[in-house]
Order: sequence, then C-alpha cells, then structure tokens
Amino acid sequence: MKPIIPSLGINRRTLLSALAVLPTLSGTVRTAAAQAQTAASGHALASWNDGPAKQAIIDFVRATTEQGSPKFVAPEERIATFDQDGTLWVEHPMYSQVMYCLDRVPAVVAKKPALKNVEPFKTVLSGNREAMAKFTMKDLEMILAATLTGMSVDGFNAEVKKWLETAKDPRWKRPYTELVYQPMLEVLRYLRDDGYKTYIVTGGGQDFVRVYSERVYGIPPEQVVGSMGGTKLGYDKDGKAFLTKEPKLLLNDDHAGKPEGIHMMIGRRPYAAFGNSVGDQQMLEWTAAGAGARLKVLLLHDDAAREYAYGPAQGLPNSKIGTFTPALYEEAKTKSWTVISMKMDWKRIFAFE
Amino acid sequence: MKPIIPSLGINRRTLLSALAVLPTLSGTVRTAAAQAQTAASGHALASWNDGPAKQAIIDFVRATTEQGSPKFVAPEERIATFDQDGTLWVEHPMYSQVMYCLDRVPAVVAKKPALKNVEPFKTVLSGNREAMAKFTMKDLEMILAATLTGMSVDGFNAEVKKWLETAKDPRWKRPYTELVYQPMLEVLRYLRDDGYKTYIVTGGGQDFVRVYSERVYGIPPEQVVGSMGGTKLGYDKDGKAFLTKEPKLLLNDDHAGKPEGIHMMIGRRPYAAFGNSVGDQQMLEWTAAGAGARLKVLLLHDDAAREYAYGPAQGLPNSKIGTFTPALYEEAKTKSWTVISMKMDWKRIFAFE
Repeated sequence: MKPIIPSLGINRRTLLSALAVLPTLSGTVRTAAAQAQTAASGHALASWNDGPAKQAIIDFVRATTEQGSPKFVAPEERIATFDQDGTLWVEHPMYSQVMYCLDRVPAVVAKKPALKNVEPFKTVLSGNREAMAKFTMKDLEMILAATLTGMSVDGFNAEVKKWLETAKDPRWKRPYTELVYQPMLEVLRYLRDDGYKTYIVTGGGQDFVRVYSERVYGIPPEQVVGSMGGTKLGYDKDGKAFLTKEPKLLLNDDHAGKPEGIHMMIGRRPYAAFGNSVGDQQMLEWTAAGAGARLKVLLLHDDAAREYAYGPAQGLPNSKIGTFTPALYEEAKTKSWTVISMKMDWKRIFAFE
Repeated sequence: MKPIIPSLGINRRTLLSALAVLPTLSGTVRTAAAQAQTAASGHALASWNDGPAKQAIIDFVRATTEQGSPKFVAPEERIATFDQDGTLWVEHPMYSQVMYCLDRVPAVVAKKPALKNVEPFKTVLSGNREAMAKFTMKDLEMILAATLTGMSVDGFNAEVKKWLETAKDPRWKRPYTELVYQPMLEVLRYLRDDGYKTYIVTGGGQDFVRVYSERVYGIPPEQVVGSMGGTKLGYDKDGKAFLTKEPKLLLNDDHAGKPEGIHMMIGRRPYAAFGNSVGDQQMLEWTAAGAGARLKVLLLHDDAAREYAYGPAQGLPNSKIGTFTPALYEEAKTKSWTVISMKMDWKRIFAFE
C-alpha cells in the first residue's frame, strides 16, 4: 500500500531560517471606492495586520469580483483551494491523522491479537514516543493501512468523530479541531462571501478530513479533496448495501497529485490556492498557469513563540513535515507569489487566544 | 486499459417487453396544504402526466423538505444523483461519447499514420457502420484509449465542445445535447428549487460529460461523477503547468463503482437516485440502505414511437445498452421502487416537440 499521508516521505532538507515577506501587486492605482471596500475587507480580515499579504488577498478579491473589472471572474468559476496541514491548522509535532492512527492501534490489536508482538504495532503499544518518532515510512504505512481500512465508511466516520471529541494536542491541551488558524478561517469566509467556493486539497485522507470539515471550516464533505482509498460494496444479513474501506490507494493527493486531484474532483482550475510546503508547489504552479488574476499564497511558519518555526535550524525534531525549501522560496520570489509571515502578518493565531 | 464506458460490456439479456407502472407511497393521508403544494409541483413538472411516478417524486420532496415533517432532511444533506445515458438523454442506437470517439479516429490516424491499416481503426475509417456495430469490447477499448487520452485536459475540452456543435443524432438530425428528456430537466429543477444538490453519476467519461453538463442540465462540472482516467502534470516550454489525460482508469463508475464513485466524489449518501439499467442497480440499493425517506427511480424505455422500446423483443439492434433486466424489474417491484413509464408518464419527451 502506498502512503495515505505521502508528504511524510519528503527528504530532509535545510529550511530557510528567516524569510522576508514578499511585496505583491505593488503600484496598483487605488480609487476611493476601492479604498472603502478595502476598509470593509480589513474588518473581515480582523486577525490580520496590514501588510502586503493581506493586501494581496484583498486586491485579488476586488479584481475578480467587481463588476467591470478587466479580471472579473464569473461566479461559477470562483474556486479557491486550501492545503490543510500547516495551512489551515497546526501540523507539528505530527499530523493529527497520524495521531489518530496511533491511538487506534490498541483497538486494531484487540481484534487481531497476533499483531501484538509484531512491529511496528508492538512499539506503538509500548507507548514509547521516542521510538515511534523513529518509525520508517514503511512502519507508518503499515499502521495507516491497519487503522484506516477494513471498516465500513459509516463505522470509520463514527470512530473519527469520537476520537476528535477526546484527543488533545500535547502542547495546547486542546482538541485538534481548535488548533485552526483564525486568520485563515477569516480568509475562507471572506472568499465565500464574495462568491468563491472553498475547497480543502490535502495530502491527508479525504474521508478523515470530511468528518469535521463542515463544522470546523464551513467546508462541506463534497468540497474536500484528499488522498483517496478505494471502497468495496457489500450487503449485510438484511440485504442492505454498505461500503467498506479498502487498503488500496486511488490517488496520492500531494505534489503533482494535487492538480490531478483537483481536476478529478472539481474539473476546474482554481483562481486562488493556499499552501505551505513543497507538497503544494504543483497546485500553485497549476493555478498560476491559468489566465487572468490568480492568487498563489504560501504560509511561512516563522513564529516559534506563538506556534512553530520550522526546520532543523529552529530545533524542531521532525523536519519531514511542511517542508518549505529554499528552492520553493526562490520560486515564490521569482514569480511574485504571496508569502504570509505568521509572525508579521497575523495578529493572533487561534480563536481561543 | 479498462473500458471508459464499462456498461458496453454487459452481456446480452432478454429485456422485459412491457412493464406495468409500480404504485408507490399509496395510502398517504393528504392535507389541503399538501394538495396545494402538489398543484404547484404539478406546474413545475409540466411535462408529466398525473400518476404514481409523478406523485412519488412530489411526495418525496414534500416529506424531506417541509419543516416539521418526520422525514425532514437538512438542506446540506439533500443530494440527488442521476445516471445520464438513458436516464437524462437518449442512449440509442449508441452512447454519444462512443460516437465522439468514432468521429475522432481520422484526426488520431492523421497524427499516427501507422494506425491506418490496423484494426479496428481501418474499419472506422471505411465508414462501414454495419462492420462497426460488430466491434468487440476490445476493439472499442482500443478506440476509446486512442481518442480520449494523450491530449491536455484543455485540448480535450475544446475538441468535445467543437464536436458537440456539429455532430447530430442520426434519427432526429439534431445535436445530441438537444436529445435530453424534458421531464427529467423538470425533475432536476424541481429538486434544486427545494434545496437538493443534483449530481450526474455516469458510467461515461467524467471529463466528457463535464464539457456540457452546466449548459445542458444546469449541473456544474464539480457535480459530475463519471468514469475517471488519470492525468499527468507536465510543463510547456514557458514553464507553464498543464495536465495530460492518461490511458489509466482510476474508477469504473458503473455497477458497484457508482456507490464507490459517489462516496469518493461527494462523501454523502444520496436521498434520491435515478437510473435506467443494471448499471444503476447498486446506486439505488446503496441509496435505499440509508435511513429516512429515500427515492429510488428507474426509467423504463417503453415508447418505440416517441423514443425507443429497449431490447431484442422490440427489434433494436443493440441490446447491450441500457439493460433493464427482468431481475431488476422484480427487485424494483419487491422493494417498491418507482418505475417511470416513458409512454404513460411523460406528456412529451423533448423540449423541441
């Protein structure tokens, strides 16, 4: 089985320790009406500091939604796509979905006791987090396959829902679903208010994210694009049809898989795309290749105090997550993509602050 | 390559020559208010004769959308799925998409002249429709693979659009997109007016149907679920990203593939599902297995004069299309599914009549 969370497979790379915020859309002639609209937008983006990132988002919305604008986009074409892990919510020290899988291991072993003495399950049962941090890709794939498949889709939804109600992030001691970025929730709402259809496009499991996407982000399940596993139709003793999750990967929704997943699930090219790592690079490139105004945004985790600053230079143990490489930064600079500095651009990170 | 249009692979079966219309939802106590609403609904379903099929649709909508109804369905859960070929538009004597593929052969051969003397391309170029009618599944797969893949998704969209503007159905001498069933367009609109999100769920190619779904059915591309091929990301000489259609089938959206495709693309179980053949059977069964009111509808082609009456008994040459078997009819009867008789239930078939 291929990885459900493929971005775990990214090679270690040195991360840039500090990035300047990129200026975008400079030199735009502003009218009084536009300035008034910007003020209103500023209210919608209340957790944002004024600066080039906020301005780029506002300018994009104005350019694509104002009647008469040369870059006006028809309402049905307004598609905006968002990576999830590290773009909409916290991804350190480990993706929440992986935490779910680790927590599910005891229940899986209870059903298949033979796994008790088999690695990597044995290590998970020992509770030794240090040993778990050394898991190879193959170890994680075995855990994902065992914990994400073999049950009905309804059963899986119920399990994830239950887990989300009790599981807590180790640093903030809060449910994972509270660790969403308030400024990004504001961007989602701001875009929707202007007729954009917002989608999550994640390397994580599509079925996992769909369980909470509507409640947490206001994004319905049908607007979640993720790594997709196959299902198999069966019938229960009363002849009722049900679907079982199979250990078969249909689409690895990361890197080049993101444009592919977007084409498959949406069939339109986005006008705006938000990400934070090399796994989102191709989604932004494919967005950029469309005609008219296209917003390409990368979120830089440079705030060790309020959240995290990524990479070995900042002393984080897991450098395989959310890789924002120097090459990606160069590309963003060359192509005038927008880079959000969490430290500079965000007044606050979480709603509970 | 597996078939893009898998229902072509169905074995020949004797079709039932005549089916009675099934009574459904009998014995419902009707209030005056409900009767008034039914009158309004009757206006929305202007091309329908009064009868159990029309009534079943109206009763379902009332039960699931009226505040206070014990079977009320929250707006975001209102999903209705429709097979396309034979359910929304004419599928005889051959699926339009196959006609497209046959028409595309000369252009493909012009680019690859070696194919000129290779079967089945040689026969297609000869224009001998009788010989083409004898194509095996393997022949058709070769034609589909050669004509539906290897080009960019934008190029494919442009080609299909161009073809639809000029190609004509041999019987009505009209564009295929005019051969949609007016009564079904009314059902689509009626459901949408009551908050239902309407989806096409077709065994045909997802990318093909998306080209015209919005214009013809009012269904946007992101609400088309079909057989899905893979794509591959590439970059042109200017470094611009594009997607190329690959001869790789990700999902065969027919039979058990329909519930699987619905789960993958929508992530919710439909409350209403419409089909016309054994390829839709599992979609209806999976819809039926959900709690609350669920509408399961099969369209019976029993009108040789105004459209077609299917199967060898009616003398149609191609019995591989739209197979409504005796077993499926038995299942519909046993489970009280709704069967639409084209002859009895529809005042008119097409908008141009």
